[in-house]
Amino acid sequence: MPEWRKDPVVDRWVAVSTERAKRPTDYRPPTELKKQERCPLCEGNEGDTPPEVLAFRKTGGERDLPGWWVRVVPNKFPACRVEEENRVAFEGVNVKRKGVGAHEVIVETTDHEPNLVNQTEWQVQEVIWAWRQRSLALREDKRLKYISIFKNKGSVAGSSLEHAHSQLIALPMVPVEIAAEIAGVRAYREAKGSCVYCDLWRHESAAGDRVVIEGDEFLSFVPYAARFPFEMWIVPKRHQADFGRINEAEVRDLASVVRDSLRRLAWTVYDPPFNMVLHTCPVNDGTSDEYHWHIEILPRLTIIAGFELGTGYYINPTPPELAAAALRESGEWCPELITAVREVRAGV
Amino acid sequence: MPEWRKDPVVDRWVAVSTERAKRPTDYRPPTELKKQERCPLCEGNEGDTPPEVLAFRKTGGERDLPGWWVRVVPNKFPACRVEEENRVAFEGVNVKRKGVGAHEVIVETTDHEPNLVNQTEWQVQEVIWAWRQRSLALREDKRLKYISIFKNKGSVAGSSLEHAHSQLIALPMVPVEIAAEIAGVRAYREAKGSCVYCDLWRHESAAGDRVVIEGDEFLSFVPYAARFPFEMWIVPKRHQADFGRINEAEVRDLASVVRDSLRRLAWTVYDPPFNMVLHTCPVNDGTSDEYHWHIEILPRLTIIAGFELGTGYYINPTPPELAAAALRESGEWCPELITAVREVRAGV
Repeated sequence: MPEWRKDPVVDRWVAVSTERAKRPTDYRPPTELKKQERCPLCEGNEGDTPPEVLAFRKTGGERDLPGWWVRVVPNKFPACRVEEENRVAFEGVNVKRKGVGAHEVIVETTDHEPNLVNQTEWQVQEVIWAWRQRSLALREDKRLKYISIFKNKGSVAGSSLEHAHSQLIALPMVPVEIAAEIAGVRAYREAKGSCVYCDLWRHESAAGDRVVIEGDEFLSFVPYAARFPFEMWIVPKRHQADFGRINEAEVRDLASVVRDSLRRLAWTVYDPPFNMVLHTCPVNDGTSDEYHWHIEILPRLTIIAGFELGTGYYINPTPPELAAAALRESGEWCPELITAVREVRAGV
Repeated sequence: MPEWRKDPVVDRWVAVSTERAKRPTDYRPPTELKKQERCPLCEGNEGDTPPEVLAFRKTGGERDLPGWWVRVVPNKFPACRVEEENRVAFEGVNVKRKGVGAHEVIVETTDHEPNLVNQTEWQVQEVIWAWRQRSLALREDKRLKYISIFKNKGSVAGSSLEHAHSQLIALPMVPVEIAAEIAGVRAYREAKGSCVYCDLWRHESAAGDRVVIEGDEFLSFVPYAARFPFEMWIVPKRHQADFGRINEAEVRDLASVVRDSLRRLAWTVYDPPFNMVLHTCPVNDGTSDEYHWHIEILPRLTIIAGFELGTGYYINPTPPELAAAALRESGEWCPELITAVREVRAGV
């Protein structure tokens, strides 16, 4: 049973695996690359995962059998579980709580394809609908306070499965990064009387030199203080705190903007590893509509090292304006090139 | 000239390189491993670095020539520089300041040896004295507010040079991570009337199950909420906010405890990549003695992925108690094994 432990000094919780603990020998450096075994996320292998919690499939199709196009299953090795009791315990200066929560995998395609961007725009819309549906379903458990949705692409970015997928972790507390953003939103509103994200996308749209794509509903741009080379933020133009309230027109535009942004990223810097993280407001905490949800795409071309870990600051070797210009000017999409690059990366 | 840019929402500054910008083609995946070229940190190659700012050498020895045992030089590609003017500028919602500060490399040994732990205890003491001396010298510039000292070991941990070295970055602002720790220290003192780090090392020393080494002056232990497998904190027993005030007995004990902790880490999990970060109080800000300096050793056996980047929380697959037991019980040091492991890691 995993448990959450809190740092005694700062508001940082860590999920500690206790039942499937990795011992020193598990960290032996690999002498050769592991062969890809049977993929548990491919259509036809539904029995290799825990039973599904959601699947989009034709009416009348059977659970945990082929015939779906997006499928959501519990993580086989979860950081936390819904069944757990929500109790905090103390041990001297140390604090822990049971691993209450949920950890799910959103399978983004039936075929063994690592790139979400090789899917149709319709398929990306369906993935976004699955995120929304799980976010709404999980908040029915009133103990849960935040629903984190993210995507790790490539082993350098933390992905252990090649097959395109995203993940969801539901938590009984509001993460420190989100709490810091909410505090920043409040401070800005007190000083200026407006929403900082609303002002931000308008400022970036007008300035133009960091814009990647401007859709009807979303702006994709490289943030002024990007932590990572080719980092992009995708911000909804309509002020909305909660991703769960995304509407149909927005899902359509978001699918288009996300897919195009990721295509440009892959094209510009050789299909890099990246993380994509949804930032949204807490749930079940009576929060007002102050926050402004958005998506952050974090390419992993640089290393998070001692300086970043010790200070929380970053060093970015590529100016955001240069990155945005390259992303804007990136050429036509070419799946063959990506395949070639993928083979090179797999060999490194 | 690098510039610091602030996130519009949270207190996160990013050093953006503008003069030596990395363009998209610089991120092409490598097709073969780069050969180690002439090492600029080796004795005899002093001309390959900028002129030294400090060196420990025999009396009468000449600057920037062989004969030293620890040498400190400015980073050839600095994130910031002391010459810059300390001015803040605004651009809509965005904030920037010039890259005022310093970025230095502490060369930890004359020979081309990647492992600090293969040096004598005396040599490690000398490295600590160099850290202290540069920390005291740089704070004479009253614009500087924090001096970050850290070590990246292995390319996965962000090191671009194999030769054992640490780094120093002096900043005109107090990093968000340190500010959060100071807030935590204050909150604890208000609630309990004591220093949380003093209480922490006493609690850990008494509990014992997470202790790695107990020296006369320092305790090395795996923190209860360790973010990383085999993470260790080295905390001075004497309450002291400022690393710059370390005394001679403490330098001796710290060298012994750091070296032994790193040896045990290398032995237990196959010479892993790691970051080592010194946490100390700000300088030139009239801060009281509330803070308690310490060192954090962060092995990089897991990946910082979307969940960690989006929430600030971590998932640690190795329970701290198991890690500490393995580190305590780790066998005799064997340089040959480490050499073998290093070759395997270099090939991965």
